[in-house]
Amino acid sequence: MKAAQFFGQRDIRVTDVPKPQPKENEALVAIEWCGICGSDLHEYLIGPMVIPRKERPHPLTTEHLPVTMGHEFCGRIMSAPEGSNLSQGQAVMVDPRIYCSDCTNCKASSTNACKSWGFKGLSGSGGGFSETVAIDAKLCYPLPDSVDLSLAALIEPLTVAWRGVKVSSVTEWSDKSVLVIGGGPVGIAVIHVLRAKGCKQIFVSEPTALRAAQNKEIADQVFNPITENVGDRCRELTNGPGVDVVFDCAGIQKGLDAGMDALRYKGIYTNIAGWEAPMVVPLMRLMLKELTLKASMAYDDIDFRETVDAFVAGRFKGVERMVTGRIHIDDIATKGFEELVTNKDQHIKILVTTYKDKL
Amino acid sequence: MKAAQFFGQRDIRVTDVPKPQPKENEALVAIEWCGICGSDLHEYLIGPMVIPRKERPHPLTTEHLPVTMGHEFCGRIMSAPEGSNLSQGQAVMVDPRIYCSDCTNCKASSTNACKSWGFKGLSGSGGGFSETVAIDAKLCYPLPDSVDLSLAALIEPLTVAWRGVKVSSVTEWSDKSVLVIGGGPVGIAVIHVLRAKGCKQIFVSEPTALRAAQNKEIADQVFNPITENVGDRCRELTNGPGVDVVFDCAGIQKGLDAGMDALRYKGIYTNIAGWEAPMVVPLMRLMLKELTLKASMAYDDIDFRETVDAFVAGRFKGVERMVTGRIHIDDIATKGFEELVTNKDQHIKILVTTYKDKL
Repeated sequence: MKAAQFFGQRDIRVTDVPKPQPKENEALVAIEWCGICGSDLHEYLIGPMVIPRKERPHPLTTEHLPVTMGHEFCGRIMSAPEGSNLSQGQAVMVDPRIYCSDCTNCKASSTNACKSWGFKGLSGSGGGFSETVAIDAKLCYPLPDSVDLSLAALIEPLTVAWRGVKVSSVTEWSDKSVLVIGGGPVGIAVIHVLRAKGCKQIFVSEPTALRAAQNKEIADQVFNPITENVGDRCRELTNGPGVDVVFDCAGIQKGLDAGMDALRYKGIYTNIAGWEAPMVVPLMRLMLKELTLKASMAYDDIDFRETVDAFVAGRFKGVERMVTGRIHIDDIATKGFEELVTNKDQHIKILVTTYKDKL
Repeated sequence: MKAAQFFGQRDIRVTDVPKPQPKENEALVAIEWCGICGSDLHEYLIGPMVIPRKERPHPLTTEHLPVTMGHEFCGRIMSAPEGSNLSQGQAVMVDPRIYCSDCTNCKASSTNACKSWGFKGLSGSGGGFSETVAIDAKLCYPLPDSVDLSLAALIEPLTVAWRGVKVSSVTEWSDKSVLVIGGGPVGIAVIHVLRAKGCKQIFVSEPTALRAAQNKEIADQVFNPITENVGDRCRELTNGPGVDVVFDCAGIQKGLDAGMDALRYKGIYTNIAGWEAPMVVPLMRLMLKELTLKASMAYDDIDFRETVDAFVAGRFKGVERMVTGRIHIDDIATKGFEELVTNKDQHIKILVTTYKDKL
């Protein structure tokens, strides 16, 4: 079958690979759509980072480069283990995580922090940029007919945001003010989750005009950190104290500095971003305002269940605007990865399919 | 009257200054003992840092260099405002803080984070290395006769630790394991507070032999971070997961790295230390373990009240061993500050008095 595999930096190839053979506990899923994630792009440009090299195969899959990419995917059940609640043709969203179920974290239900964590689409055992995948039936979340399967792959990045929002430890959002640093795909997913949770005051700091325009459709205020003092703007709009919570969806030092400036006393800074450079914490701000810094790691079963439920319930209003491109797998290198390199800010999410008739 | 004033780096002089004239709301306190704090030493060596320079006087005291030093002090009431609960001769511990009562933080009772925060002994309006001080009567905490006034000055550093322990947000300590990074005065105060709160598993990372020996008297295990892997030792002693909470009382990068390594999943890192170099957070640890980083700022009225009460109740067992020197104010430069520079690790706390007969 067709699969897009990562061979090395800027080298993704559509190749022919064997069809997966489901194990006893696994369903076989015909993949309909799979999103290109920021971390895929990261691997493409400076990887292999998470993708295992030959010298160090993934501890659970035992696989290494080349691996099939794509971890934001949905599809339809082709076959399912006996006794599962899945039947042929059933639309499903897939939780792409790989975990051992055996380490101290997994045993404490913190499978997001499995000591051998991995993802289908990064760590081997197949991925979403292909025709089919074999996956533990319990990681397949059935979707009702009311859900548009051409959008369901968005559930995965929304789950990342869902976890991040939960990790902040805030439970009641209706009276909170929030600053999102970076209005790219992760930042936009965070805004959708915050709206779903009733947050009414969401500001975004985003330097590029294209993204700022996208952000304006869903945020209350969008600041340009190059021409505006983000901290001052946040204090102005909160009548003095600054924002309650910051979500870092950019992973750059200037964002961290501005975000910690923008927080009120006892404010909470939550990092969801990957960082390429060291994260230097402005200690005087951290201390004088007794700030809290947190970071989230992927998501667990509960996060996935909750996000699927919120998606099915239509709580992510306007989320369809996240999709800025749909392409065929044959074009994944040029119209997918290279397009994101060249015209990054024009895109939020590009979805990939192996079905020509779905385009 | 006699007062030890800071004139500049390594320049502290005992001079003659006018006696303070108490305002309507102020008590006049005859100071008996005042401790030399790490931050005093910091000012002495690389200051003025917190101490205001001529170009930038303190916003509330309007004073600047030279200022009388010393902010960990107790004494006896000489005169008190009418209607206060203080009478002549009453032993008191003094909360040395200066705050405006008017900024958004003060109005929200977060006087520790006053936007014009200062301390007697650093910011002007007198200090503990002198004969008397005039101070708001509500900042004087009466001590019963059962309290040894020659130890009461320790309440101030204990309050710093009390706040730090509270900021960690842990409320039940009896089942928690803790790593204290740095077994100096702040680390030792933290251990005393943790013991007072029922913590049963306290480890310390301390490289110097002298301090390690002091630490061993009150901690369960003391590690040498130069010869031992602190993270491994913590995992070993907690049967796998690592410690629940770290208190950073050192403020150095190696300590932060080891401390974040030593924490279990969802562990809490609380900084109480000052840092001279940037604080670089090991992001992968922060993220993969979803750690929380917090920092504490001084203390507020409630912290002071609680620490005084705990001290009076005798909850800081063996705290008298913190006092490693008692000197007369005339010797403050040589037997106080220079002694701490030369033989830092031999000391925890040196107390200063103006009374020759108390030595």
